Amino acid sequence: MSSTIRIKLSRLAELLEVKLEGDGECEISGLGTLADAVPGQLSFLSNPAYAGQLAATRASAVIIDEKSCDACPTNKLISARPYATFARASEIFHAEEMPAPGIHPSAIVHSGVNLDATVSVGPNCVIEAGARIGANSIIGPGCIVGEACQLGDSCDLRRAVVLYPRVVLGRNVRIDANSVIGADGFGYAFDGEKSRKIHHGGSVRIGDDVEIGAGTTIDRGVLDDTIISNGVKIDNQVQIGHNCVIGEHTVICGCTAIAGSVVIGRYCIMGGASGAVGHITIADRVEVSAMSLVSRSVTEAGRYSSGTGHMKTSRWKRVITRFQELDDMANRLKGLEKLVKKD
Amino acid sequence: MSSTIRIKLSRLAELLEVKLEGDGECEISGLGTLADAVPGQLSFLSNPAYAGQLAATRASAVIIDEKSCDACPTNKLISARPYATFARASEIFHAEEMPAPGIHPSAIVHSGVNLDATVSVGPNCVIEAGARIGANSIIGPGCIVGEACQLGDSCDLRRAVVLYPRVVLGRNVRIDANSVIGADGFGYAFDGEKSRKIHHGGSVRIGDDVEIGAGTTIDRGVLDDTIISNGVKIDNQVQIGHNCVIGEHTVICGCTAIAGSVVIGRYCIMGGASGAVGHITIADRVEVSAMSLVSRSVTEAGRYSSGTGHMKTSRWKRVITRFQELDDMANRLKGLEKLVKKD
Amino acid sequence: MSSTIRIKLSRLAELLEVKLEGDGECEISGLGTLADAVPGQLSFLSNPAYAGQLAATRASAVIIDEKSCDACPTNKLISARPYATFARASEIFHAEEMPAPGIHPSAIVHSGVNLDATVSVGPNCVIEAGARIGANSIIGPGCIVGEACQLGDSCDLRRAVVLYPRVVLGRNVRIDANSVIGADGFGYAFDGEKSRKIHHGGSVRIGDDVEIGAGTTIDRGVLDDTIISNGVKIDNQVQIGHNCVIGEHTVICGCTAIAGSVVIGRYCIMGGASGAVGHITIADRVEVSAMSLVSRSVTEAGRYSSGTGHMKTSRWKRVITRFQELDDMANRLKGLEKLVKKD
Repeated sequence: MSSTIRIKLSRLAELLEVKLEGDGECEISGLGTLADAVPGQLSFLSNPAYAGQLAATRASAVIIDEKSCDACPTNKLISARPYATFARASEIFHAEEMPAPGIHPSAIVHSGVNLDATVSVGPNCVIEAGARIGANSIIGPGCIVGEACQLGDSCDLRRAVVLYPRVVLGRNVRIDANSVIGADGFGYAFDGEKSRKIHHGGSVRIGDDVEIGAGTTIDRGVLDDTIISNGVKIDNQVQIGHNCVIGEHTVICGCTAIAGSVVIGRYCIMGGASGAVGHITIADRVEVSAMSLVSRSVTEAGRYSSGTGHMKTSRWKRVITRFQELDDMANRLKGLEKLVKKD
Repeated sequence: MSSTIRIKLSRLAELLEVKLEGDGECEISGLGTLADAVPGQLSFLSNPAYAGQLAATRASAVIIDEKSCDACPTNKLISARPYATFARASEIFHAEEMPAPGIHPSAIVHSGVNLDATVSVGPNCVIEAGARIGANSIIGPGCIVGEACQLGDSCDLRRAVVLYPRVVLGRNVRIDANSVIGADGFGYAFDGEKSRKIHHGGSVRIGDDVEIGAGTTIDRGVLDDTIISNGVKIDNQVQIGHNCVIGEHTVICGCTAIAGSVVIGRYCIMGGASGAVGHITIADRVEVSAMSLVSRSVTEAGRYSSGTGHMKTSRWKRVITRFQELDDMANRLKGLEKLVKKD
Repeated sequence: MSSTIRIKLSRLAELLEVKLEGDGECEISGLGTLADAVPGQLSFLSNPAYAGQLAATRASAVIIDEKSCDACPTNKLISARPYATFARASEIFHAEEMPAPGIHPSAIVHSGVNLDATVSVGPNCVIEAGARIGANSIIGPGCIVGEACQLGDSCDLRRAVVLYPRVVLGRNVRIDANSVIGADGFGYAFDGEKSRKIHHGGSVRIGDDVEIGAGTTIDRGVLDDTIISNGVKIDNQVQIGHNCVIGEHTVICGCTAIAGSVVIGRYCIMGGASGAVGHITIADRVEVSAMSLVSRSVTEAGRYSSGTGHMKTSRWKRVITRFQELDDMANRLKGLEKLVKKD
């Protein structure tokens, strides 16, 4: 982090709303991992897997919870949620320069566009007719904002994002490069000979404080809109089909594939490369493990998995043969039970 | 759907080639779901899961099949295939404005390009030398059409599509944003120390009436071309490896991964996030379930699945332990059978 | 391959460092598969599945190994590794024209950029402030090179590649269209109510001779960099999370999803659509099968798989029911064993 910010530890403790134990005069100029931090840097311990690195850390201070405190050889910022406190610290030391407001001369801005004066439009952007973009929003290089799109304040389309016409973003929505919001969903009606396209009259509505990674695609709805609620976080290369409704504060990890018309509740976590088949409902606070497929509705909160776990391929091949005979095995077991119990 | 089209139901029945039951004078100005349609809108019932919404619908008419007719409280358009009829209706009420022919001044068009006078080339496009584009085709904003590409009539590259050199598209091919057609396939020969690149001299040939979603990648062939046949529909974020041949009217759902040199038959359906390993052949009319992997050739039409179905993670962990012991269990069962039957 | 190169077979044998058996005066002007080659073309036999095509080939010569030689009806280039030899031949006959050095007038090049005079920058590129690009590098149409990125010599960003700020590429790095290197990773700390963003101060460092396909995303690190080592080959639509370290010469096939902080060894092969959960380590020379998930660290070289193999859906449904009862079955088997052995 090429920051030149320097902050006293006592002031940091105030900003982060945590208790300081140690030298408040110590100056912090950046962040580092336990293993790699140099003096002057602040580190953190959240995942217990890294506790062994505490003793040898050269960090000048560590964000840590109460119960791990004794093992920490340096200044401590004591937090009930060290990772959340680290997130706030990462914001303080984050020194990315924001582009100045204004429209780059190479950008193509169509007629009837309504841009707040504080908006920044980067090189080679295309802003189509009737688009509205709120205060302090940044449209990074190479973005395409479709006809009549509406973006709230403080949105940040990082680079080369494509919004199809009539997509609506709330406030403080951040989207990373090459994501595509609002393409037609995969809707065809087979007429006996060929697949006939369903034209999509709906759109995509995205709430406030939503973040979307790179290379993600969210399709517009057929008649109603696809809805991404407030606070949802979506990673890279996620696919969300037409007419899905994703509940508030749900987190969707990378490469997840969600078919059309899936309703996902609030505070869910879809693990990496997980999936959900179409037309199902997933309750609030459901967690789905990595590469697991949700193949019918889930009505109860909790953790769900599918798959087999990995093993040596040589052994796996034998197991798979048995797996495919499982119905036969079960019947034989039943038969044997009858036989033995009759005896 | 912001359409201003108004059509009498009697006329709609003619256009859609279906039987009308009810008031032919009723005017329809748009489409809506059974649950959300307002008076003046046409709805449809195809998926039986939504039949319960029929009684309370406010739609002015419903596309419905003969056997569900009695439960419909309003005007009916009776169709043997309600969803296919709805697809045709979605086309009628689809009011997207097409861009006018002509080349946007910001587009870069190289020398020796052959564009029909009716072609529209959007802002910031790059059309490389020797490309040919047929009548009524639309090259949306930010597309790159590589050297010597050939596009038939009525193609529609929606936005930011990349065609590598020499890619051939038939008539009426639609490709959504950020798809990449014709990059080199993943071909390396390991020489004992490192992976040596196979240069790809083939290309990609795409037939007529093909639709390709957003963020999809189709690689060019090594020596021969990768082939996507007429009528194929491909969803978002699909990967198709070099030298694949996809048969006519096959449908490939989102996030599917097809390795190199796979031959897929006609009228197949690859479910969402499904996969196929390389160098296999899949017969006509094969359906593969969501997130299932086809790991050897399939010679017989029908439905195929892999995977385990999801369950509570706590229970799944126990089951997985047993799964990994399955070969041992099978042997023990066999031993027991011998023992019992000897008795 | 539209090459106009013509080379005598004797000269080809020299260039490819293999033994010639047959007519050294025979002229070769291109490459073809065994099935489709025409006279004048060179073919190869590597995958035994294609050996049956040898007898009828019209190729003028075939790259082949010693033991398959007798079955070859034409001139032979005898190689211990026919596929690696074919890779070298594909390079010789590869006739793609390289763009001339220079900056296309439509490219936006910010101040303080350091471009070697031999660099080619294509139309509609954006090169941000402070970027450095080495000799003979090609920045294809529509690429965005972020602030302070550093590219070594002979890099090739094919088309529409996005590099976020401060990404570092070694020499001879090739990246295909729409890949995104260096977006922020998926890091959020849940504070009890909402997910709080972790700002990413690290970057991505990519070594020499790395190739990355189309639509791939590699996230920048939180504090340290994400590292892709020399000689790594990455296919299309791969996702690599923040702070991963990918060892030298490892090969990652298409659609693979690698979560954050995964350390993968040297000479590994991640099969297509495979995955790895976060914070694990995978040893050198590990091969993971297609669509298999590595769910804990792997400490030993070898091949690993997960999944079930595909079968007819009708049979699969019965098997899956049994699978989900597997713990119960195992217990019943155990009970039966006790009962029988007691007898």
